[in-house]
Amino acid sequence: MMRVPFETLVHQFEQVLQSRGMHEEDAKLCSHLVAETSAEGVYTHGANRFAFMVRMIDDGLIDVRAKPELTASFGALERWDGKQGVGNLNAYASTKRAIELAKQYTIGCVALAHTNHWMRPGTYGLMAAEADCIGMLWTNTLPLMPAWGGVDAKVGNNPLVLCIPCKDGPVLVDAAMSLFSYGKLETYAREGRSLPVPGGYDSEGNLTTDAGKILASKRPLPIGFWKGTSLALALDLIVSVLSGGNTTRQLGLMGKETSVSQLFMAISLSSLPDRDRIEAEIHASLEDIQKSEAADAGVSVRFPGQMRRKIKEENLREGIPIDERVWQEILNL
Amino acid sequence: MMRVPFETLVHQFEQVLQSRGMHEEDAKLCSHLVAETSAEGVYTHGANRFAFMVRMIDDGLIDVRAKPELTASFGALERWDGKQGVGNLNAYASTKRAIELAKQYTIGCVALAHTNHWMRPGTYGLMAAEADCIGMLWTNTLPLMPAWGGVDAKVGNNPLVLCIPCKDGPVLVDAAMSLFSYGKLETYAREGRSLPVPGGYDSEGNLTTDAGKILASKRPLPIGFWKGTSLALALDLIVSVLSGGNTTRQLGLMGKETSVSQLFMAISLSSLPDRDRIEAEIHASLEDIQKSEAADAGVSVRFPGQMRRKIKEENLREGIPIDERVWQEILNL
Repeated sequence: MMRVPFETLVHQFEQVLQSRGMHEEDAKLCSHLVAETSAEGVYTHGANRFAFMVRMIDDGLIDVRAKPELTASFGALERWDGKQGVGNLNAYASTKRAIELAKQYTIGCVALAHTNHWMRPGTYGLMAAEADCIGMLWTNTLPLMPAWGGVDAKVGNNPLVLCIPCKDGPVLVDAAMSLFSYGKLETYAREGRSLPVPGGYDSEGNLTTDAGKILASKRPLPIGFWKGTSLALALDLIVSVLSGGNTTRQLGLMGKETSVSQLFMAISLSSLPDRDRIEAEIHASLEDIQKSEAADAGVSVRFPGQMRRKIKEENLREGIPIDERVWQEILNL
Repeated sequence: MMRVPFETLVHQFEQVLQSRGMHEEDAKLCSHLVAETSAEGVYTHGANRFAFMVRMIDDGLIDVRAKPELTASFGALERWDGKQGVGNLNAYASTKRAIELAKQYTIGCVALAHTNHWMRPGTYGLMAAEADCIGMLWTNTLPLMPAWGGVDAKVGNNPLVLCIPCKDGPVLVDAAMSLFSYGKLETYAREGRSLPVPGGYDSEGNLTTDAGKILASKRPLPIGFWKGTSLALALDLIVSVLSGGNTTRQLGLMGKETSVSQLFMAISLSSLPDRDRIEAEIHASLEDIQKSEAADAGVSVRFPGQMRRKIKEENLREGIPIDERVWQEILNL
């Protein structure tokens, strides 16, 4: 593991993206979003995923010149077509538009069809919070998990983000409907470590903490067992219906995670008359969480998103941690 | 277990509620909602919970004459005060209003403060679906689970409903953020049965399938371990902020599950230009789920909400199943 200065990371990303025909301004924003994700400690969805995005560009699955287009408007809800463009740029534009709608209608919602992987889901929740909005957003994915009671993949893991602005935070929940992502299972399997809790079934249908066996069976556990697959199905139907885009079933037929559907909802807190009271109440709730009696001595209880700023400060000061092989791969792109 | 005709159940509920001073029309609707919940097979939240509601009336926690009042309006979002009224009547009125707002703005949202237990969450999702709206709604509760890494109860289980209209369904997801409710844990403990999967920690901090030990430790598992408590916290903050009502922390200070906060969001599908295509896509997704290869031979895979109509038809024909002691208790109210 080495550390690379934030600006070096951004600059390198920009060079690669411009070499693939992306406009300078777009390459700047796209690169910044990816580097910022690593800066905030979400390494799996930042620099580590950059080469994956570039491969999708090289394979013609991402159109670096495409811009999202408004296809229909229904007051506080708008439908946009992502035109197979760059996932994080489309998501950025959609969040910005949802915030504008929220400033006009208190609630704003953009349903985006035919877009690509948005990299880190939390990015767009944080954008909403910075504009003093609650952010609620999710995406669908390829079929990655069996429906409850089945063995063949039928539902996505459909990451859901809930973000609530506050001076201590924001509170940021960024949760896929599978307990562990395939990326995480691969890491555990590679390192020969047991999962902290059972993460899926082996090929005989027994719950196991052996990530390798789950990768073989392709039966990762949904969150809350029977509850997670139901939630994932509902999220998929809502996002595909509202955007007019692909369902997880349709993505499965195509077999590649492109042309996905995403939803961006913002609710403006600035519109509410008791904004100060709200801040105080959120603060009190978060303080209460942190005052929990700890299950393990010395391990303090935190609210989701609490460590983000601290990690970012350290990484901006010391450089962004990155695996040397990952960095070398990016330099070679 | 005995079976009581639907109309007998409704009539008995009406008598009891009117004896507590509830107006005739309100008693009729309230009774119908409770009986319908049992008719649809959700016995825990229907007749089985009726005596609990009546005790709350007798204890002065529910005001049977109160009507919800609009306290602020922000376009597609409205704030209502439940005035400590009857939970299911308040939720019914709020859903109705959210649907009206959705018909006007495509998205409609009612945030309700100071209301009481809404009995069966799914009721209001189904109402939205009947009006051709997607329903998204949730409530907060008393602190029932520790935050992740803690041992003392800090977050609610905050049931979340997602409902999507379709001719096969609707698809109805009605999921608390705890894996098992306290009610379910009590049932398992009473019957001396093991939970099908670990449902919480024992007092030594080990995961266990022994419901009695979880009841003793008060450490039930959230869905998805660390994910469920984060989701529950976010749902609590959103609903309390938007309604201007109590947070789970505040409910905990009061120590009684009354004056809770609820959110009712409806999104009108009738507003969308491709309503027929949407119906076909949802149908295709649900059919795909049902074509899953089954993990256990002979156990077919279903979508959430699939069995509802069939159960209801049978129960309306044969009578509503009810524990004899529960029925006797209701007759004595």
